[in-house]
Amino acid sequence: MTQVNVGIVGATGYGGVELIRLLDGHPHFNIHSVYSSSQNDLPISEVYPHLSHFAYKLKGINPKEMAKEVELVFTATPSGVSSKLVPTLINEGLKVVDLSGDFRLKDEELYEQWYKKPSASLEDLEKAIYGLSEWFADEVSSADFISNPGCYPTATLLGLAPLAQEKIVVSNSIIIDAKSGISGAGRGLSQLAHYAEINENMKIYKVNKHQHIPEIESILSRWDSEIGNVMFNTHLIPMTRGIMTTMYAQLKEEKSIEELHALYVQAYEAKPFVRVRKLGEFPSTKEVSGSNYCDIGLDYDERTKRVTIVSVIDNLMKGAAGQAVHNANIMLGFEENLGINGLPVYP
Amino acid sequence: MTQVNVGIVGATGYGGVELIRLLDGHPHFNIHSVYSSSQNDLPISEVYPHLSHFAYKLKGINPKEMAKEVELVFTATPSGVSSKLVPTLINEGLKVVDLSGDFRLKDEELYEQWYKKPSASLEDLEKAIYGLSEWFADEVSSADFISNPGCYPTATLLGLAPLAQEKIVVSNSIIIDAKSGISGAGRGLSQLAHYAEINENMKIYKVNKHQHIPEIESILSRWDSEIGNVMFNTHLIPMTRGIMTTMYAQLKEEKSIEELHALYVQAYEAKPFVRVRKLGEFPSTKEVSGSNYCDIGLDYDERTKRVTIVSVIDNLMKGAAGQAVHNANIMLGFEENLGINGLPVYP
Amino acid sequence: MTQVNVGIVGATGYGGVELIRLLDGHPHFNIHSVYSSSQNDLPISEVYPHLSHFAYKLKGINPKEMAKEVELVFTATPSGVSSKLVPTLINEGLKVVDLSGDFRLKDEELYEQWYKKPSASLEDLEKAIYGLSEWFADEVSSADFISNPGCYPTATLLGLAPLAQEKIVVSNSIIIDAKSGISGAGRGLSQLAHYAEINENMKIYKVNKHQHIPEIESILSRWDSEIGNVMFNTHLIPMTRGIMTTMYAQLKEEKSIEELHALYVQAYEAKPFVRVRKLGEFPSTKEVSGSNYCDIGLDYDERTKRVTIVSVIDNLMKGAAGQAVHNANIMLGFEENLGINGLPVYP
Amino acid sequence: MTQVNVGIVGATGYGGVELIRLLDGHPHFNIHSVYSSSQNDLPISEVYPHLSHFAYKLKGINPKEMAKEVELVFTATPSGVSSKLVPTLINEGLKVVDLSGDFRLKDEELYEQWYKKPSASLEDLEKAIYGLSEWFADEVSSADFISNPGCYPTATLLGLAPLAQEKIVVSNSIIIDAKSGISGAGRGLSQLAHYAEINENMKIYKVNKHQHIPEIESILSRWDSEIGNVMFNTHLIPMTRGIMTTMYAQLKEEKSIEELHALYVQAYEAKPFVRVRKLGEFPSTKEVSGSNYCDIGLDYDERTKRVTIVSVIDNLMKGAAGQAVHNANIMLGFEENLGINGLPVYP
Repeated sequence: MTQVNVGIVGATGYGGVELIRLLDGHPHFNIHSVYSSSQNDLPISEVYPHLSHFAYKLKGINPKEMAKEVELVFTATPSGVSSKLVPTLINEGLKVVDLSGDFRLKDEELYEQWYKKPSASLEDLEKAIYGLSEWFADEVSSADFISNPGCYPTATLLGLAPLAQEKIVVSNSIIIDAKSGISGAGRGLSQLAHYAEINENMKIYKVNKHQHIPEIESILSRWDSEIGNVMFNTHLIPMTRGIMTTMYAQLKEEKSIEELHALYVQAYEAKPFVRVRKLGEFPSTKEVSGSNYCDIGLDYDERTKRVTIVSVIDNLMKGAAGQAVHNANIMLGFEENLGINGLPVYP
Repeated sequence: MTQVNVGIVGATGYGGVELIRLLDGHPHFNIHSVYSSSQNDLPISEVYPHLSHFAYKLKGINPKEMAKEVELVFTATPSGVSSKLVPTLINEGLKVVDLSGDFRLKDEELYEQWYKKPSASLEDLEKAIYGLSEWFADEVSSADFISNPGCYPTATLLGLAPLAQEKIVVSNSIIIDAKSGISGAGRGLSQLAHYAEINENMKIYKVNKHQHIPEIESILSRWDSEIGNVMFNTHLIPMTRGIMTTMYAQLKEEKSIEELHALYVQAYEAKPFVRVRKLGEFPSTKEVSGSNYCDIGLDYDERTKRVTIVSVIDNLMKGAAGQAVHNANIMLGFEENLGINGLPVYP
Repeated sequence: MTQVNVGIVGATGYGGVELIRLLDGHPHFNIHSVYSSSQNDLPISEVYPHLSHFAYKLKGINPKEMAKEVELVFTATPSGVSSKLVPTLINEGLKVVDLSGDFRLKDEELYEQWYKKPSASLEDLEKAIYGLSEWFADEVSSADFISNPGCYPTATLLGLAPLAQEKIVVSNSIIIDAKSGISGAGRGLSQLAHYAEINENMKIYKVNKHQHIPEIESILSRWDSEIGNVMFNTHLIPMTRGIMTTMYAQLKEEKSIEELHALYVQAYEAKPFVRVRKLGEFPSTKEVSGSNYCDIGLDYDERTKRVTIVSVIDNLMKGAAGQAVHNANIMLGFEENLGINGLPVYP
Repeated sequence: MTQVNVGIVGATGYGGVELIRLLDGHPHFNIHSVYSSSQNDLPISEVYPHLSHFAYKLKGINPKEMAKEVELVFTATPSGVSSKLVPTLINEGLKVVDLSGDFRLKDEELYEQWYKKPSASLEDLEKAIYGLSEWFADEVSSADFISNPGCYPTATLLGLAPLAQEKIVVSNSIIIDAKSGISGAGRGLSQLAHYAEINENMKIYKVNKHQHIPEIESILSRWDSEIGNVMFNTHLIPMTRGIMTTMYAQLKEEKSIEELHALYVQAYEAKPFVRVRKLGEFPSTKEVSGSNYCDIGLDYDERTKRVTIVSVIDNLMKGAAGQAVHNANIMLGFEENLGINGLPVYP
């Protein structure tokens, strides 16, 4: 069976360790090496005892050496790190799926405004294909460098795509109320993620300032250039995994809920990882947990003439590692669902 | 010290047992009896072992007998039960604070449309004073019968009152995204509230159909008759206590965030249980847990010209038992904060 | 590739739905049918929306029809149901892996004393092979009917086997303090499993009366006939999945912790699903969650001359569905780790 | 009403903030100042937004100044800090209730062996009265300096006192399996307390090495000099508050469970904060949460001739701040339950 050697940079973060889980079970990808800038030679099992039977040791990052070992690298590195690292990997001829936010915007100023960090160069930004697998598979299939979408944008864009593509949303009318489990905040220590502080608690954060806003807007406007700005807010919820986006929008013309539902069903009928739930049924986050599914439910409220769309994903799967493997499958010409077709872990 | 004998009907529900906790520590109210329609003579400690040192036994409901024992009754009974029970208590001259939804709307048809149950009579509906303590204290102080607001309406209305009272909100522009802990669903068994189903999960429910919608709209329209309909959705969050409402609205005229904040600070400066957080700070639910506080934060988003308001309460306290005691204090002429001035239990 | 048609009885419980997840990803087993005594024709996706893309409908239980469709049946039925159902399946020539407690004890009286239900006949009890895969693989490989071990006994017995097999434990000295997530209590509704009651709570139950006690003792005594009785207590912990057993025992002779550790390493070096953690390291339940691993750590306390052994499993995997598939693999001659070699889902 | 000015050192930890909650509602204690070594002048509301209406600012630690302001100081400081700070407060004539572990052992070597830190001087150790309120109230009432018991020792010692005082336990036979919520690990950041790591997880820690072992043994041996060593292990449970100790012991002579239960009922009948649950009933941690109760249940297992005792407390209340206030009440001659007689917060 075809075996492609791959490497993971940033394996000690939650996105990285989820990549290990998926790639370990993948029929064509072979984890050859896991890299880390800071913890050279440390066995990965010291960082993650749940991998105690794993022999891998973390290796230092040396693009030339990496190019000898592997064909494809997943970079699960923080924003601000990928912008510097990834171009050096590309230069060595490595294929890259980057999970950071550094190559998602195609505008240096916009990046610096929202991320408060120096941007990658416009030249490098333009090399990266935005890998929202369901809608940009063609571009992904001929790419060597994928910028993997953010967790919130994935849930949001999959939920809004059918409306945006139909150009039926009133400009500036979209409001996105997003909720995420704590793993979205990463493995780094912070008061915010201290168990006793966030258990039995719910917290809004980055009010109207989240760096995923321009990412969402830029993709929506590819589909509907007049869709305008979105209002987007994010909440931390006391659970480990899962994102729910509850979205509200006004439509240019009245639609029956049946028409809207049919629009969604049609949009996603050939997309194996998006499940439009039947009319009147709404997904909960646990119903996709541990899997690569995005489930969507919708309603039209006659009283307020607005549509409600609910979209759920596992932030570490469809919102990170799952979608990264999905993109890698498409990029390398494998069946798109290999290694990521596990059912949700329920309960 | 003045001692007023009180009774609790529905003490075996979560609202009821929280009333027991508060009234047990109240300097003027004395829990004389706890009543239940179904479990006559059962010691309350059999239902709630955390009250194992309590001697109270549940008594049957007999309004005439009750009128001999107590002056004031808290009815923490389900919708559909209070509508029948409370008028019989009023008839016996008892003062009543009703925690159900049965007397909050002043329109029989509206009630039946949203609650899917027979309404109390219009005559009885009109007797009940809507006890949103901060804004209707005058009416409460001269009343004998209080309809205690719903949990979601309390958080919502306290969050929107300053805007509505100023009449600066664009009609039909309000969107309320509400999140609640599971205790809001009551103590009754359901698949929804099964630990393994809702732990590590988040669920939207009653999409655009929640019975608190007309309650919210009717009070908002008292303040601003042209405020129109609200869009309101509710989510279950994996925690026991707490409600957060994240609210979005368009304003008729642009306001700086400083002006808006000043408006809120002024509106609540004399209200001891509402804490408007300082500019840039937003409350989390744990910061009011176990207490009668409602904390509010707000932002104005220049990009979308909308205001974001965040309001948090403990659903069993400010959203139920705490506000009921607050109303009882006002009704009987006691200091308003007696028995409910405990600090939040943190962490 | 070899395809074996299998059926699942009791697919609507947590053990059953975990079997669906595992068998759906298994290279040789094909889920032909899911059966239920009560919900004929109901799509499984109505019960479990996380399977919303699944076409399976529940079928009634008819052993003759089942024998035409499938070769092997997993019975994830409650105690008291399996005892009647399984013999009828065996009679039709079906291979069976039974996940209930009905065939684990080989003594009718003992069963009735602890389970408070009528026992299966001794003849049927004796047909069932106790499928603790690590230690009874030989018997399993030639069997047609497996009684799958209980969740607590699996964690306990794997943790104690090396000591018991060496016959070095002082008789009657074993104390097992077991803790389980709530999914172990099943999907049925109960006050015990109501979210608001068990969240932020910890509860001991069936004090010294758990029906897994005789199962543990009967297997231990196969290894060491003089090992005597065990003290065994069980606690519910506010999490969905996971069992930890903390075990204490006196040894007949002093052993260094190094000797003990070497004994464990050797006992399990050829068993792919048991990971003896390195000296000084102890497993946590999340480190095996979603996987078929049992992780073990141990210590010797010089002060009290007792050994401490900690053993963790995912109760729905190694403690139920995972071990059932493991047994099925062995029984049908497949590689033992097929379909159950996924890494733990972390975090 | 008598008003005693008190100060809190270490108010930014969880023990300190719980002291604020209790003392704020206490009829006789007035929180005059909150002190911190490191965050001079910082409003406490910046650290704890749930106290956003509080005006207190943290003050630097200056024993001479403190002695002018307050009569009594609660030191909720870490081990290793109290040993140096408290003697300077005593020297200034301040009354002290110290919540650290620094003065609980009366043996410098033992302290240094278990705490791995320099001990306070023997002279200072001997000044401190061990404040297990139920059993040492007489000494407390005439003391000026209380060493408040540890959380685990409180639950353990209250659970074992009646047996130890009767001298009926077989020497070296006690095994204590303790479980704690995460707040017990304090507010400091650590991987252990990161939400995504400990949610849906259970972890054993400090196996046979917990520094509370000598504290437990030294008090038990005051009651029964031949009781010997205890085996004691501790587990982190995914919840914020609560400790359960499950304890196992052999008795020198057989006792019926009725006799044992009577012994416990009698031992605690005059102690308002210990509730011996009725025969056959066992407490859960939520049943004491937010309160100063310690609830105890017990069983005698005929099969293994051992007693099982279960004891639960809220680690921040009875296990820290609640007991500290209890001791302060006794020390200053107030009614013992003032300020700490709130009912458990349930659910």
